[in-house]
Amino acid sequence: MNTRWPLKSEEFIKLLGVEIPVIKAPMAGGPSSPELVAAVSNAGGLGSIGGGYLTPDILEKQIREVKSQTNNPFGVNLFITDPDKEITAPGTNISEKLSSYATELGVELTGQVAPFPDFEKQFEVVLDNKVRVFSFTFGIPEKKYTEELKRNNIFVIGTATSVGEAIALQNAGCDAVVAQGYEAGGHRGSFDVENGLPLVGTIALVPQIADRLNIPVIASGGIMDGRGIYASLSLGASAVQMGTAFLACEEANVNQSWVELLLSSEDVSTVLTNAYTGKFARGIKTRFTSEMQQFEKEIPEYPSQHQHTRELRVKAKELNNSEFMSFWAGQGSAMSRKTSAKGLIEELVKEYIEVSNNMGP
Amino acid sequence: MNTRWPLKSEEFIKLLGVEIPVIKAPMAGGPSSPELVAAVSNAGGLGSIGGGYLTPDILEKQIREVKSQTNNPFGVNLFITDPDKEITAPGTNISEKLSSYATELGVELTGQVAPFPDFEKQFEVVLDNKVRVFSFTFGIPEKKYTEELKRNNIFVIGTATSVGEAIALQNAGCDAVVAQGYEAGGHRGSFDVENGLPLVGTIALVPQIADRLNIPVIASGGIMDGRGIYASLSLGASAVQMGTAFLACEEANVNQSWVELLLSSEDVSTVLTNAYTGKFARGIKTRFTSEMQQFEKEIPEYPSQHQHTRELRVKAKELNNSEFMSFWAGQGSAMSRKTSAKGLIEELVKEYIEVSNNMGP
Repeated sequence: MNTRWPLKSEEFIKLLGVEIPVIKAPMAGGPSSPELVAAVSNAGGLGSIGGGYLTPDILEKQIREVKSQTNNPFGVNLFITDPDKEITAPGTNISEKLSSYATELGVELTGQVAPFPDFEKQFEVVLDNKVRVFSFTFGIPEKKYTEELKRNNIFVIGTATSVGEAIALQNAGCDAVVAQGYEAGGHRGSFDVENGLPLVGTIALVPQIADRLNIPVIASGGIMDGRGIYASLSLGASAVQMGTAFLACEEANVNQSWVELLLSSEDVSTVLTNAYTGKFARGIKTRFTSEMQQFEKEIPEYPSQHQHTRELRVKAKELNNSEFMSFWAGQGSAMSRKTSAKGLIEELVKEYIEVSNNMGP
Repeated sequence: MNTRWPLKSEEFIKLLGVEIPVIKAPMAGGPSSPELVAAVSNAGGLGSIGGGYLTPDILEKQIREVKSQTNNPFGVNLFITDPDKEITAPGTNISEKLSSYATELGVELTGQVAPFPDFEKQFEVVLDNKVRVFSFTFGIPEKKYTEELKRNNIFVIGTATSVGEAIALQNAGCDAVVAQGYEAGGHRGSFDVENGLPLVGTIALVPQIADRLNIPVIASGGIMDGRGIYASLSLGASAVQMGTAFLACEEANVNQSWVELLLSSEDVSTVLTNAYTGKFARGIKTRFTSEMQQFEKEIPEYPSQHQHTRELRVKAKELNNSEFMSFWAGQGSAMSRKTSAKGLIEELVKEYIEVSNNMGP
């Protein structure tokens, strides 16, 4: 297709060696299969592996699977979190509530803590496999990591939810920054929460960040079609990152309940909740998010709550009980379409051209 | 200036008899002076009087003042609220907190309820003065009102914060609907809150509403410059409504503290609070919003809390004590500029053309 992107986007896609300024959000925790990552990269976008929860071995396996399916660039995303953060026990209210759910689902909450993968080793896998793009969420990596990435000619993308975070990421040596708007599905990437969790909508966040950075800004949050891409680029972004839009794609590792919830959702179907993991994330409202909301302020921080609810979520998945599973999705979920990643990207480009024609002159 | 707007916007501005698809948000409660309304209309936009809190006499006086300063169309906005809603007393926590603030500011909270203006009579003023546009917030007027407006050839604009509300407004006979995104300053216009207050960001809300209506959609929330206007129109809106952007204009009836707060604000400076009026509204964070947040769920509904805090806010204004005044502003507040309304509108159009050129082809 004969698309002409704005100059900034042309520069960005040349830099990354892709054809269109669309990055598939990494979406750690399952949905982003190697097939989906490769399909997006093959279609001209940038696929990304959500590696945050993956052991180094599985991460390496996924990278190889992607490489076996595409020669195009793709990215790997890891979490920047405190490895030494202690697991705190839930208070009485949370504990009682989780126990009652456990009884209802017929699962024993053992309190066993599943170890998180070792960041050092995950990082080594990224370096060893010479992926084109490394992105990260929830913080800023130490300087030794960004320097090592640069030595290996890996493009580094950080995630910001406020102007302050974006500036900090630029100062830390990022090559580009994702501006994650309030509308985004999944976890807030926030790391500067001293004055409260930043909750700025995409249309306000992107221009404010673009005005303050001299590196490319990648818009995310609520972008589901060619209109959203076009709007984001006109706000000052060089590219967009889209997660929810790819969830209903046939290559995604997403169970049928999730797809059905997406396709039948409305604009008001999602909620920001800390009930699943202790870190605020946007997902489809469930009985669990609704009933836990009253305890919002008592819920122990990530990763404690993540550990406390883990066995509950695993069991719910086994039982296909939608009311206790986490269905991450953004505020544009109702615009989801069931298609292939290639089909979706073709539609996005077509819509983009249509909007461009409508906008004249 | 030789601007060509998208077809939808061209149709909309022809319909209203304006030159640019920009409506100044009504902003009830003071900031929107007749001078500001007239200046916006004279500059080719649509000025709007925020009539919600005005007695019929003052509303009529303001309409005449606007008419004496412009021959161009303008609008009047009124509140659709339940006139019989009882004032409920605050609980102990709120009561004690407000008393302690009263002592601090040296004001007596008499508990006297200031009567709200009579809607019937406000409405008569709108009809008698044949204003071009009538807009409303917080509900849907009874059919007799919309029919009367149509008989008088008055263009009717409702305010929605969700797809469901937008459809209800179209069904009620509105000629256009404002899609108010989460980023917007001032009160949420929501009226269908059965499943929680709709909090959908502009970039997700506008396309979803545009897809479901066959009447024009007006985007609002976080739009501060030509980029925001361009993005909104590409998302499917026919026009935009901007409030915060006009607050720092010299014609606005805004005190110096507010202007300074706007100009020195950041992307994360605002908060959604029900502490001032009992209805959620977005404004600059103050000591009052921060300290009252813990009581969010106990605060009596609008207009009760509005009445309970009224004397406190009046006194704070007298004392020029910023920590107890309500400074409504949207998430784009940091993009405010101190200029004239005419100057701002000229800049907006210039920026719009720049974005259009950048977007190519």
